[in-house]
Amino acid sequence: MSVGVPTTGSLPRDPGTSDLDRLAIDTIRTLSMDAVQKANSGHPGLPMAMAPVAHLLYTRVLKHNPADPDWPDRDRFVLSAGHGSMLLYSILHLTGYDLPMSELERFRQWGSHTPGHPERLLGAHESGHAHTPGVETTTGPLGQGFANGVGMAMAERFLRERYGSEVMDHRVFSICSDGDLMEGVSAEAASLAGHLGLGRLVYLYDDNRITIDGSTSLSFATEDVDMRFRAYGWHTLAVDNVNDLEELQTAVDAAMAEEERPSLIRVRSIIGYPSPNKQGTAKAHGAALGEDEVRATKELMGWDPDAHFVVPDRVREVYAPVRERGARLEAEWESRFADWRSAHPDLAAEWDRAWSGEPEPGLAEALPSFDPLETEKLATRAAGSKVLVDIAPHVPTMVGGSADLAGSTLAILPGDDEFGPGRTGRTVHWGIREHAMGSAVNGLSLHGGIVRPYGATFLVFSDYMRPAVRLSALMGLPVVWVYTHDSVGLGEDGPTHQPIEHYAALRAIPGLTVIRPGDANETVQAWRTAVEPGRGPVCLLLTRQGLPVLDPDLVGDGPLKGAYVLDEGPEGADAIIVATGSEVAVAMTAQLKLSERSVSTRVVSMPSWELFEEQDQEYRDSVLTPGVPKVSVEAGISMGWSRWVDASVSIERFGASAPGDEVMRRLGITADHVAEVVLETLERAAERG
Amino acid sequence: MSVGVPTTGSLPRDPGTSDLDRLAIDTIRTLSMDAVQKANSGHPGLPMAMAPVAHLLYTRVLKHNPADPDWPDRDRFVLSAGHGSMLLYSILHLTGYDLPMSELERFRQWGSHTPGHPERLLGAHESGHAHTPGVETTTGPLGQGFANGVGMAMAERFLRERYGSEVMDHRVFSICSDGDLMEGVSAEAASLAGHLGLGRLVYLYDDNRITIDGSTSLSFATEDVDMRFRAYGWHTLAVDNVNDLEELQTAVDAAMAEEERPSLIRVRSIIGYPSPNKQGTAKAHGAALGEDEVRATKELMGWDPDAHFVVPDRVREVYAPVRERGARLEAEWESRFADWRSAHPDLAAEWDRAWSGEPEPGLAEALPSFDPLETEKLATRAAGSKVLVDIAPHVPTMVGGSADLAGSTLAILPGDDEFGPGRTGRTVHWGIREHAMGSAVNGLSLHGGIVRPYGATFLVFSDYMRPAVRLSALMGLPVVWVYTHDSVGLGEDGPTHQPIEHYAALRAIPGLTVIRPGDANETVQAWRTAVEPGRGPVCLLLTRQGLPVLDPDLVGDGPLKGAYVLDEGPEGADAIIVATGSEVAVAMTAQLKLSERSVSTRVVSMPSWELFEEQDQEYRDSVLTPGVPKVSVEAGISMGWSRWVDASVSIERFGASAPGDEVMRRLGITADHVAEVVLETLERAAERG
Repeated sequence: MSVGVPTTGSLPRDPGTSDLDRLAIDTIRTLSMDAVQKANSGHPGLPMAMAPVAHLLYTRVLKHNPADPDWPDRDRFVLSAGHGSMLLYSILHLTGYDLPMSELERFRQWGSHTPGHPERLLGAHESGHAHTPGVETTTGPLGQGFANGVGMAMAERFLRERYGSEVMDHRVFSICSDGDLMEGVSAEAASLAGHLGLGRLVYLYDDNRITIDGSTSLSFATEDVDMRFRAYGWHTLAVDNVNDLEELQTAVDAAMAEEERPSLIRVRSIIGYPSPNKQGTAKAHGAALGEDEVRATKELMGWDPDAHFVVPDRVREVYAPVRERGARLEAEWESRFADWRSAHPDLAAEWDRAWSGEPEPGLAEALPSFDPLETEKLATRAAGSKVLVDIAPHVPTMVGGSADLAGSTLAILPGDDEFGPGRTGRTVHWGIREHAMGSAVNGLSLHGGIVRPYGATFLVFSDYMRPAVRLSALMGLPVVWVYTHDSVGLGEDGPTHQPIEHYAALRAIPGLTVIRPGDANETVQAWRTAVEPGRGPVCLLLTRQGLPVLDPDLVGDGPLKGAYVLDEGPEGADAIIVATGSEVAVAMTAQLKLSERSVSTRVVSMPSWELFEEQDQEYRDSVLTPGVPKVSVEAGISMGWSRWVDASVSIERFGASAPGDEVMRRLGITADHVAEVVLETLERAAERG
Repeated sequence: MSVGVPTTGSLPRDPGTSDLDRLAIDTIRTLSMDAVQKANSGHPGLPMAMAPVAHLLYTRVLKHNPADPDWPDRDRFVLSAGHGSMLLYSILHLTGYDLPMSELERFRQWGSHTPGHPERLLGAHESGHAHTPGVETTTGPLGQGFANGVGMAMAERFLRERYGSEVMDHRVFSICSDGDLMEGVSAEAASLAGHLGLGRLVYLYDDNRITIDGSTSLSFATEDVDMRFRAYGWHTLAVDNVNDLEELQTAVDAAMAEEERPSLIRVRSIIGYPSPNKQGTAKAHGAALGEDEVRATKELMGWDPDAHFVVPDRVREVYAPVRERGARLEAEWESRFADWRSAHPDLAAEWDRAWSGEPEPGLAEALPSFDPLETEKLATRAAGSKVLVDIAPHVPTMVGGSADLAGSTLAILPGDDEFGPGRTGRTVHWGIREHAMGSAVNGLSLHGGIVRPYGATFLVFSDYMRPAVRLSALMGLPVVWVYTHDSVGLGEDGPTHQPIEHYAALRAIPGLTVIRPGDANETVQAWRTAVEPGRGPVCLLLTRQGLPVLDPDLVGDGPLKGAYVLDEGPEGADAIIVATGSEVAVAMTAQLKLSERSVSTRVVSMPSWELFEEQDQEYRDSVLTPGVPKVSVEAGISMGWSRWVDASVSIERFGASAPGDEVMRRLGITADHVAEVVLETLERAAERG
């Protein structure tokens, strides 16, 4: 299509930028304005301001192949400021990704590939949208993309060290905003990236001095961002004029040349440029510019104000070489990859398995079993530790660690190969940075599915990283969240450390599988689920305190089904006691006490509601038989249990600081109390007839 | 008691510290060791290392009166590193707060005043513990105390500006740790404090280079903390030797002399000093030293290893003047306060009301009412905005704002009096820092109850500040969380911005009152509850989209009871539809559709589960009549609803990016779907007989 537009209209030429580049950049601007205007919803200001950055990166910097967005060795680009999604959609469309103009015209509409914020959808969960090719992660909640990129750069370094730079050797680029840099999660992630020396990170900070509420002078402009990042150990650079491609290129080159430290390039931009009446103000941030202003802007740029979603032929020509360049780069890599495969057949086989999500051979056989005759009591965190040690050799790309609680969570991979400054092992010391841990674990997984990451902390601190856990579920990422100290049973640390509402709060997140195993052998099965190919994020809730070890034959693979009959009791069940985690032992004792009173009960262990929901009705009815009175026991709030049972033994208040068994007892998590509630429930059922 | 101990045992004398001061400091160390050892649980290392700081602050620096821990103009001290609680308990005991030795001996035991982490308990919620006099906030989850202090300093400045420096003129001191400084919430709070220029903050950073997992070289030591804080606009100082009281005093004096910028004093310490075998290592961090090591340490210090919980008479004498000094300081203030009251009777009356928690006269009359004949549709966020404007003059100490979404949440106090650099109005621009907002709002409230703070953002971002919301509930703080854009009805921003699980996740927190009003008039009542004296934290969930305005006479004060019969229907109800928020209108339409099919339904609006639970059984049965089939409709997960109803119209997946009404429709939140589910539920009930 030729619309004969001039190159810069009545605006001045940009220094360091050719007319043709300027025309391409203005195309990104008009596409963004048009899409936001048509949807009457969205954020035009960032795409208009940062169009030169996207143009430069996607034409001359990024190693990428629009024809193969899954090429393992591609550079990753993260639009952390996800509200500027039209910037990404425009450049993906222009450079030849499978994102036709019709999708840009359906911006923010049901079922389009162009949702309001970029969404990367993995796994099998429902959504209104298909996945957008070229989108590396789901951004929008500020700071998340920034921290995802840190995880991606960790994945790149890990895989480069393990498999060689012939097959893994790339960078992670990001555009981030004031909002990204104000969020605590990016502060944590920046500190971590500086500490680890992630030199492959090249982040471009859109320093536009405007947030939704107005000037950053309201809340942020006093901060010296460059100095802060230098304090974290970053390499900082500045670009005074985003519209000067030469200046931009020089800074990006310098950032890429620095391999020991992550780089932050502060890019001075004008939000909504060159909108004559709204540029440089919050009016260009979060709403369509309005038809009049779009017209005025197009006229100023020398574009036909009556044409929409236009890409001049000359601009198509500018972008055509990107595909050629990408195909060539990937072909070169393919050739290196083939040589590498021949030279390293064992590594190549491992690579294939890892990339397919399949575990190494021998995983199932490696799983431990715990004998109650040998081990009377074991904390499930300790059992989980043993599982990790045993499965680690069979999941060689498992990478993870704790948020400074390794000695407490015990979620430690064997050996001493740390992922630290100058070292690239499997054990990460995340520091006391739960939120960055969560988002970086997501980034490790997003890198391509080959890395199997996990993060561990106390269950109560899942609150600190909840936005990351939510995004892992939204994206269906195969990550593992190990949460120990999972009840008031942790004792003396008191209510600030004792989870009460966290079982419910985590079960509430769609797409998350929450497993609270009842003993060491159930923990083994829980980990089996956690590393199952195709499974999305899994939370493992593990005890601090020792629990009786159950007979592994009784446990079997029952936990894989979410709930199972652990003990049918002496004769047909008068009632069913349903328990999770440390309360399974309480239920077993209650069963005994009730049998002494001639009440026969079935004990059901129910480590996971979600897994149980996946079973067919027949199985579910065989476990939680309709018509039989049921009582749950779990050391947290009862919210949601009324779906499964008639009465609950629960804790509806915050905990207290005292020895764990005393807190449990005082808050009513005892076999006597369970027995009492079962008897009351039977009475009520009898009354109702 | 005289035990004739020497002053420094075989350890070298500390420069700049008298023998008597050293003895007092060693008393803090021995009390801490003894308490942790007796409980066999706790963190001895920090109290031992930072004992000189506590000693200096409480004897020579803090303006405080142990006899009156509620003196409004006292300096606040926050032990952000709450795991070092024995440091605080020791110094409170020694300086004459109402914390007898018997309580130190019950460290971390049920019902003691010395829980594992310091707890400030307000309001009427249950706990295993009584409140500890002199404890200003609940700390333990790292970073929270740091950010609470920022809120306290904001409160001090606000009250100083409003009432005068004769009555409010103090500082906020804190001891914080590596963990505090690694957490994102402290990064956000530090940036905010620097921006606002909170010169009354004096924070002492325990630079001990050890965290639970070992050396900070694992994850943090590469960071230049001083430089980072200078980048935030802080004044930074360093103390090389914590045991040199003169050096400490010089730094504290310099920090106090700086009134324009917050001060961070980095204090080099040795964790667990002077334990001969564990000092300077993670072994002194999170566990008792062990009897042998306690003995060895006492011997080294020249103390009787067989004596426990000992305070030498000479040390009692050191601390005796603290009470005298405190009494004198408070008496001087009382005198100024009396003069001020005479000079400013109106302000004094306001002060009295505010301090008592009572609103100004006229609050009830000021509440607006919305007429459906005048206003067809109104978003509840807009209604909430009107309420704020109308009540603001009657709650003059209300301070708050949004996390850079004022134009979206509309939770804006009237006028343009901003709380910013050099200005001390009521409207806070928190920046894109939800977590710091939450913790600082808690701090504003903790300052003494006189300030009525609120924080506002999108409901989905409640996840970013969840640890602060939890603590507001744990402490029973009268704060308001305004959460708008409360469902998929927000539309195009898509699943990253659409709350699904958040109603359940917030209701799960004990002690939190969650209110989701169904129209403008219900929003008025919701705010009435939110500012009710004695009420703990309240979450208001408000819509982005317009909702039909209900007849204010029908609404009445029904929302105050949590649920009420909004429309009984034409004749005795065959079924009950229970709805919240924007789904109340859906329920009303469904009622109409069902009546066309001769099914009579009652519509119950249920803005708050918690308020409904506070009602008596008779009232609850009159609303949710037992035996009548019930269906809920709410645009989120159904978790927990099975407690109230037989079936739920809900959303069990993440949302999607599209216009809000379309997303609602496609996800089944429609009157037709509700009607269908009611009919099915009636059928099932009929089958069961």
